[in-house]
Amino acid sequence: RGDSCCCCSMNGAGNLMDFLDEPFPDVSTYEDFHTIDWLREKSRDTDRHRKITSKSKESLWELIKSLLDAWSGWVVMLLIGLLSGTLAGVIDLAVDWMTDLKEGVCLSAFWYSHEQCCWTSNETTFDDRDKCPQWQKWAELMTGHAEGAGAYVLNYFLYILWALLFSFLAVSLVRVFAPYACGSGIPEIKTILSGFIIRGYLGKWTLLIKTVTLVLAVSSGLSLGKEGPLVHVACCCGNLFCSLFSKYSKNEGKRREVLSAAAAAGVSVAFGAPIGGVLFSLEEVSYYFPLKTLWRSFFAALVAAFTLRSINPFGNSRLVLFYVEYHTPWYMAELVPFILLGVFGGLWGTLFIRANIAWCRRRKTTQLGKYPVLEVIAVTGITALLAYPNPYTRRSTSELISELFNDCGALESSQLCDYVNNPNMSRPVDDIPDRPAGPGVYNALWQLTLALIFKIVITIFTFGMKIPSGLFIPSMAVGAIAGRIVGIAVEQMAYHHHDWIIFKNWCRPGADCVTPGLYAMVGAAACLGGVTRMTVSLVVIMFELTGGLEYIVPLMAAAVTSKWVADAFGKEGIYESHILLNGYPYLDVRDEFTHRTLATDVMRPRRNDPPLAVLTQDSTTVEDVETLIKDTDYNGFPVVVSRESERLIGFVQRRDLTLAIKNARQKQDGVVSSSVVYFTEDAPQLPASNPQPLKLRRILNLSPFTVTDHTPMETVVDIFRKLGLRQCLVTRRQKNKNKQTKNTYITHLDHLLRKKTSKKREQYNKQHNRDDLCEYNSKY
Amino acid sequence: RGDSCCCCSMNGAGNLMDFLDEPFPDVSTYEDFHTIDWLREKSRDTDRHRKITSKSKESLWELIKSLLDAWSGWVVMLLIGLLSGTLAGVIDLAVDWMTDLKEGVCLSAFWYSHEQCCWTSNETTFDDRDKCPQWQKWAELMTGHAEGAGAYVLNYFLYILWALLFSFLAVSLVRVFAPYACGSGIPEIKTILSGFIIRGYLGKWTLLIKTVTLVLAVSSGLSLGKEGPLVHVACCCGNLFCSLFSKYSKNEGKRREVLSAAAAAGVSVAFGAPIGGVLFSLEEVSYYFPLKTLWRSFFAALVAAFTLRSINPFGNSRLVLFYVEYHTPWYMAELVPFILLGVFGGLWGTLFIRANIAWCRRRKTTQLGKYPVLEVIAVTGITALLAYPNPYTRRSTSELISELFNDCGALESSQLCDYVNNPNMSRPVDDIPDRPAGPGVYNALWQLTLALIFKIVITIFTFGMKIPSGLFIPSMAVGAIAGRIVGIAVEQMAYHHHDWIIFKNWCRPGADCVTPGLYAMVGAAACLGGVTRMTVSLVVIMFELTGGLEYIVPLMAAAVTSKWVADAFGKEGIYESHILLNGYPYLDVRDEFTHRTLATDVMRPRRNDPPLAVLTQDSTTVEDVETLIKDTDYNGFPVVVSRESERLIGFVQRRDLTLAIKNARQKQDGVVSSSVVYFTEDAPQLPASNPQPLKLRRILNLSPFTVTDHTPMETVVDIFRKLGLRQCLVTRRQKNKNKQTKNTYITHLDHLLRKKTSKKREQYNKQHNRDDLCEYNSKY
Repeated sequence: RGDSCCCCSMNGAGNLMDFLDEPFPDVSTYEDFHTIDWLREKSRDTDRHRKITSKSKESLWELIKSLLDAWSGWVVMLLIGLLSGTLAGVIDLAVDWMTDLKEGVCLSAFWYSHEQCCWTSNETTFDDRDKCPQWQKWAELMTGHAEGAGAYVLNYFLYILWALLFSFLAVSLVRVFAPYACGSGIPEIKTILSGFIIRGYLGKWTLLIKTVTLVLAVSSGLSLGKEGPLVHVACCCGNLFCSLFSKYSKNEGKRREVLSAAAAAGVSVAFGAPIGGVLFSLEEVSYYFPLKTLWRSFFAALVAAFTLRSINPFGNSRLVLFYVEYHTPWYMAELVPFILLGVFGGLWGTLFIRANIAWCRRRKTTQLGKYPVLEVIAVTGITALLAYPNPYTRRSTSELISELFNDCGALESSQLCDYVNNPNMSRPVDDIPDRPAGPGVYNALWQLTLALIFKIVITIFTFGMKIPSGLFIPSMAVGAIAGRIVGIAVEQMAYHHHDWIIFKNWCRPGADCVTPGLYAMVGAAACLGGVTRMTVSLVVIMFELTGGLEYIVPLMAAAVTSKWVADAFGKEGIYESHILLNGYPYLDVRDEFTHRTLATDVMRPRRNDPPLAVLTQDSTTVEDVETLIKDTDYNGFPVVVSRESERLIGFVQRRDLTLAIKNARQKQDGVVSSSVVYFTEDAPQLPASNPQPLKLRRILNLSPFTVTDHTPMETVVDIFRKLGLRQCLVTRRQKNKNKQTKNTYITHLDHLLRKKTSKKREQYNKQHNRDDLCEYNSKY
Repeated sequence: RGDSCCCCSMNGAGNLMDFLDEPFPDVSTYEDFHTIDWLREKSRDTDRHRKITSKSKESLWELIKSLLDAWSGWVVMLLIGLLSGTLAGVIDLAVDWMTDLKEGVCLSAFWYSHEQCCWTSNETTFDDRDKCPQWQKWAELMTGHAEGAGAYVLNYFLYILWALLFSFLAVSLVRVFAPYACGSGIPEIKTILSGFIIRGYLGKWTLLIKTVTLVLAVSSGLSLGKEGPLVHVACCCGNLFCSLFSKYSKNEGKRREVLSAAAAAGVSVAFGAPIGGVLFSLEEVSYYFPLKTLWRSFFAALVAAFTLRSINPFGNSRLVLFYVEYHTPWYMAELVPFILLGVFGGLWGTLFIRANIAWCRRRKTTQLGKYPVLEVIAVTGITALLAYPNPYTRRSTSELISELFNDCGALESSQLCDYVNNPNMSRPVDDIPDRPAGPGVYNALWQLTLALIFKIVITIFTFGMKIPSGLFIPSMAVGAIAGRIVGIAVEQMAYHHHDWIIFKNWCRPGADCVTPGLYAMVGAAACLGGVTRMTVSLVVIMFELTGGLEYIVPLMAAAVTSKWVADAFGKEGIYESHILLNGYPYLDVRDEFTHRTLATDVMRPRRNDPPLAVLTQDSTTVEDVETLIKDTDYNGFPVVVSRESERLIGFVQRRDLTLAIKNARQKQDGVVSSSVVYFTEDAPQLPASNPQPLKLRRILNLSPFTVTDHTPMETVVDIFRKLGLRQCLVTRRQKNKNKQTKNTYITHLDHLLRKKTSKKREQYNKQHNRDDLCEYNSKY
């Protein structure tokens, strides 16, 4: 009973129409593309909780049920953690295997990735860990020749072919089975968490297809990451498990608490960073984040990370994705290049957001958007064609980042660590002094520069295509490449010019003073910060990612600089930009309301508009109501005493009204079009000749949220944001006291009083056929 | 103009009384022990911001001023970080020196602590790092004999004497100069941040005296820590720098944003844990924590930690207080002892809170509270008397924790690492297998057990005395001792019984499978969690404290278990308990409102109460208003149309009203007792014989917050919490429609609608002579 209408269940509904005591089916759910009423959802949950508590004293069975109910939150978190951890592990393993499949196959067991294949081999030498006879490139397998131009061309060709196959499969699956599975999903999840309903966005099909296509998309070698989509996948898991418990499945507010925690679990498994995940959910994604959710998010994030670690996809029993260990501290003077990297990150963020949004807008408005499959195929082809020749772009992006982050130890055999060794050196392996760069390093520098340009350009076109695509890894790659280049430059400068005044104090000859890997890490943080505008969660993720607790100051300096630089060119991060582009009704917490307006300036109707659509408490007939519902598309109607004395009684939701009338017409004899609808507590005794009245006080919200017309708009927006209202009524006192009738204006303000969205709102309404964005009013 | 009354500055106040356009002096400040109105403060800040923005277009100078204003937030953060970091460094150094002073003195330079003294010595052998000829114990210095019973007794005696001297100085300084400097300060800061005014609590004197007495209190060897008081010190710094910028000094809401960040900086320097500090501020201390504050808090915390690191009080250039490095991972089976430690932590938390609150209540209500100096002296005497004979309690508590956290390396010479070595062992020093315990370990176990009991008992009596006292370090010490004991027990069990089924899988002979130091860390987290009920921030602090990123799961398991166990016995943590004990008006975000009441059930007056005190808009005389102010002690009054038609016009603050009338009587001719006060927009033209009217629309809030009487109380409480209101008016529609006059009830609900505080509220009112906690109403 408390479920159907929270605020009225106390006011005995009389016994005129007993069947109405049964909640209407679906009376409390929302329609697609509608905003929810947080206050109402919270109130409903309190009612439910109260009912269970009072029942629990009745019998042991009820007590057990109430305990189960209290623990269901933790159970859901556990399940989310387990499933999203498992999925992330499976995705990691599959991506590893399929990425390597583009180049070759393991003969001993075709389901082994390159690394796994050579692990099990005994014939692997230490120098060439990656070369073992079991692993054969395609050309070698087909023609028998491992080297030579012919083999290279054949490998090149097959690399492109596999990439095209993977991406074609991915885009086709998305197109056919789950159109919502495309993109990173974070803008939509932000919108959903802010209280918007998008049915199917977190459904089972989306979960399944997104998981499969994510593997395909990442394996195809496109410039995208799996982190954003993993958040979407985790949220789908959350939604799935919500349906097991009525506490969450029937309450959109409680469901969003679970989804916030699921988002944390998603980031947790994406990076192996549970704390960073919680902070990401708090800082970037969530809208309503009570402390209880904080604990549960942390629990879910931990379980997820722990499950992932048990699956151990990286094969090193580390929780973190890119474990690094630097052997030297950083010096004060290095803050200058770090801050320069921050500036670069901010500029890259601005450039990327502007270019990507412009491209996405073009895709939306021109013919381009009609051929998503062709677009994906074309971009994949270009990517594969350009990526193969360069060893730094051929491999998977996470491997690239991992190599760039690494410090050059004595045993490192990569090109980036090809320094000229001092033959007299006989120190412990960990503490290698700065050395002059060898030819390999110079070679690597050129290749990295080309890779940087390639990544910058191609990522702009990749993000936003109709396949799952995350932005974290490509952004980090851009930053890591730039950072490593800067790092090597500073290192060589310090080595060759250690008498310069800036190096003199901290960099004596023979000392290990510059760590290029640290620069790569700082650069990655800066670029990621410039694109997403995260700060605290970014730094936490970075140091959880790398285990580099000592490097908070460089990371923070770069992240804050990058944010400042990027903010100077435009406040919105990539997610907010995409939300704006798609016209989602998102009320950003960070937006500041700078205009000096009062509620009276915003409310409708204005002078020339038709009067406000209202219901009266005891003189509207069923037919009138039905006409009103048909003629208008408002989400609900204020109920007033009478058309003469327009004093506000309450507010009734359109959906509730429709269902109630439909129900009454079907089940209750005597309710005809001319029946009078009563919102009062007692219906008057009517002569028998009159048609049976319809009593609807039960669906009337007696405590609608009201503000006076003198309330400043920033307060109104604050109220909307903080309380999560769906609508707010504005009452006005008629100033002209000569007239006896006290006219009061009521305005229905929508959830979406945003400063600059009036145009976008209309546009959005047209696109989605939504009705709750209109404003209206009337005199009474 | 916008400063004096936010909501009315738009409504041209007419020109009847031009001088009122000047804001009254102090019209917008609050009185001591009053709650602030967050919504109003925010609105005022928006006005201020708007004014500056519009002015900035006028001239270059104004533009520079507006830029300075925009950056002032970051400047304040920088200053807070610098000052609190410096203070923390100075405190650390002073505590080090004075703690050692109780035992002896450095001959080469008396201002050196024991460690510093022996650093500079060349004659220090590696085995006895702490013994160098420059450092002499008091007995050795005075009598020449370092050993023997006489020397022991003399040292013992001087140890107690120094302790008594320090604590006597501390308590005297607090008593004479700054009574607010006592305790940990966190309960009061929580209350202040929730929007309460306690003048002087964050003043300069408090800052100075708390810093000095904190050093004395910690050095005296009492069972207390410096972490909570450091948060208070940092908040005092924040308040100090607020006064430099009118943006913060004149707006209580903005000031609280700065204070939240300062609290983060305090924890950051207390533990060297910047992220943990931000999370602590978010989870435990703050009330209103927008994202902007999150970034700024992080910045302040970083600057503070960095400043502290530059001062380098621990002499190891590490940011963290207890750096540990464990060489072995943990195993799944170890979760059982970890969870048991969690249970212990929860039980200890419950015991401590109950016992401490009971003792504090006794102190408040009996004669005991009248002799605070004597109490401190007595507790110090007992502490020193019992602590000296036991080496684990004699040293400072942080040193003890540090030793307990440490893993036993090969070079460790402490008693706790006295294991029986296998003579054949020739492994690298880091990876020592489990060994049987030697006599030193057994000896240490006994001493630790005694230390545990001593710490448990004495901490209960120490926390709450009239000296600065933090709770983190003693709680952690209790947990660390218990954890180390359990750890050694598990280790020995695993060594002697490695054929047992539980050890078989992970603990082969000769392997290093159990790390007792990790158990100490987990135990410390569990106990701290049980007392404070932190979870996420606790785990983050613990792993920032120790650098143990790999041990999140054990820490989290213990922290969550401890919280669950402790919550089962009572929801409040130690800070909430002290807030309740002191009767501060704190509206806890975590309290759930479980009773089913409507606003109508709570509002006053009830049937038999006197009518609601209201003002009418155009028929009250100055004398009436003055009588009303004198007779009642309400914080403000609703203004209605007339006594017959009691329709609400607005709300006027008592303080504004008092000031306005005082002002008018002084400055404006013709305003006498019989002058009519007008709250309407235009005063009517009166015959010249009538006294000059007083027009007060400018101080009238035209958009008071109203709810209907049918609003559920949990919604009302939610609104109070989320919007930070000071009062909320309840409007009622008279149900009996026969009467022509539409009677509406207005109720003034207070900020403090807590479920169980009605008694406490009255009590508090009596104690503090506060008036804003009363509720009242009237018909109109």
